[in-house]
Amino acid sequence: MTQQIVTAAILAIGDELLSGRTKDKNIGHLADMLLLSAIDLKEVRIVADEEEAIVEALNALRTKYDYVFTSGGIGPTHDDITADAVSKAFGVACHHDEKAMALLGEMYKRRDMEFTEARQRMARMPVGATHIPNPVSTAPGFVIGNVYVMAGVPQVFQAMVDAVIPTLRTGTPVLSLAISCPYGEGDIGTPLAAIQKAHPETSIGSYPRYVGQKFSTEIVVRGRSQAVIDAAGADVAAMIDGIRRERDILENHSAEA
Amino acid sequence: MTQQIVTAAILAIGDELLSGRTKDKNIGHLADMLLLSAIDLKEVRIVADEEEAIVEALNALRTKYDYVFTSGGIGPTHDDITADAVSKAFGVACHHDEKAMALLGEMYKRRDMEFTEARQRMARMPVGATHIPNPVSTAPGFVIGNVYVMAGVPQVFQAMVDAVIPTLRTGTPVLSLAISCPYGEGDIGTPLAAIQKAHPETSIGSYPRYVGQKFSTEIVVRGRSQAVIDAAGADVAAMIDGIRRERDILENHSAEA
Repeated sequence: MTQQIVTAAILAIGDELLSGRTKDKNIGHLADMLLLSAIDLKEVRIVADEEEAIVEALNALRTKYDYVFTSGGIGPTHDDITADAVSKAFGVACHHDEKAMALLGEMYKRRDMEFTEARQRMARMPVGATHIPNPVSTAPGFVIGNVYVMAGVPQVFQAMVDAVIPTLRTGTPVLSLAISCPYGEGDIGTPLAAIQKAHPETSIGSYPRYVGQKFSTEIVVRGRSQAVIDAAGADVAAMIDGIRRERDILENHSAEA
Repeated sequence: MTQQIVTAAILAIGDELLSGRTKDKNIGHLADMLLLSAIDLKEVRIVADEEEAIVEALNALRTKYDYVFTSGGIGPTHDDITADAVSKAFGVACHHDEKAMALLGEMYKRRDMEFTEARQRMARMPVGATHIPNPVSTAPGFVIGNVYVMAGVPQVFQAMVDAVIPTLRTGTPVLSLAISCPYGEGDIGTPLAAIQKAHPETSIGSYPRYVGQKFSTEIVVRGRSQAVIDAAGADVAAMIDGIRRERDILENHSAEA
């Protein structure tokens, strides 16, 4: 079976995300959408509205992953510097895009509002970029190379993601099987490591829960075919049964003593 | 006035954060705590449970910021590789720490549980690291250099943060003033840029809201003294008043016509 792996990173831009003022909603949303598209999200970064920080993160991520998605910093105010930073990262000029100027100009004319210098900032993008449509508030996002630049306002971000997702190359879907395990990681760690070793085509993760002063675990088996997942899943189920039987025997012994 | 700026980064580690399975709770919590301590959070990264990714992120962040805080990957299972990755980043061996072995050994003895090989993994840390106490479930986090390695389970992470915060060097507090503005960024962009330019000791951010198909803005003025904030804040208030007066005049004209 030929497996197609497509990777992605998210770069969320904005002081407000780092100051604790705004809890980001875009990363979780896009992570879910990428999962559904079988695109592997490999890294997320959040940086401030600082040109150097954005350029550096962008150049690190765009050379490493198939796709990079950014959120934030494309509005009309002085702290919206994402278009400049992306242009700098790609070494091209940042200009007022003609098509975006026309789109915005018409919209403000229709609404009888002035097309201010600040509003014209929203038409700025790197030379050569193409638009990501914005059905919510007109001002477009843009694509240059493998970088997709989108708005930070969640309603606008989500509308842009909806427009972008169908245009992306997708991978072989990652299938997963979640198994609820009543024992903590300390009980299952050693046998689970052996199961992972025996099933190298799967990726087995264990996620501890701590409820009522007691640890339990969710075990998740991931893989790109049902057969490899089922085989590993059967071994995980057998492991849990084994621990249960062992404990039952110990308890019966105690009861007899 | 001497100003002390202390910077930090957060590195959250875990496949489950990238797959959309788990929505991270630790970043937001620590961002709030750092804000209260006047430590500037400058960057956040989320990476998978992959040694190379962790080492690379860690070495980039620890050389750039005063403090780096990590979450996740210090449990007892095979996918808990943070201790190994941190050791590799610092170029030191990863060993079973004697003090941590004693702590954990006693705890399991008290609870009449086997101190399995998997559980002993939780005592592993880089040679030379010191403990971060874990009042919830004993297994310690650790500090090496300027890197603070903590658990991913939110209850444990928060307890570790509580232990760590009082030991950190803090900066000059960043004060902030939030001003609610009924106009969108397109209306205020140009005058707000002028205000930012006139008050270079402040950082003025504007955060758009989109409610009922209408944009409004929260304007936040940040600075390290009340005087600079108040001066910029007065200019922002005057700007909003100016826009309101202008609109009133326009509306009166329309009514007269």
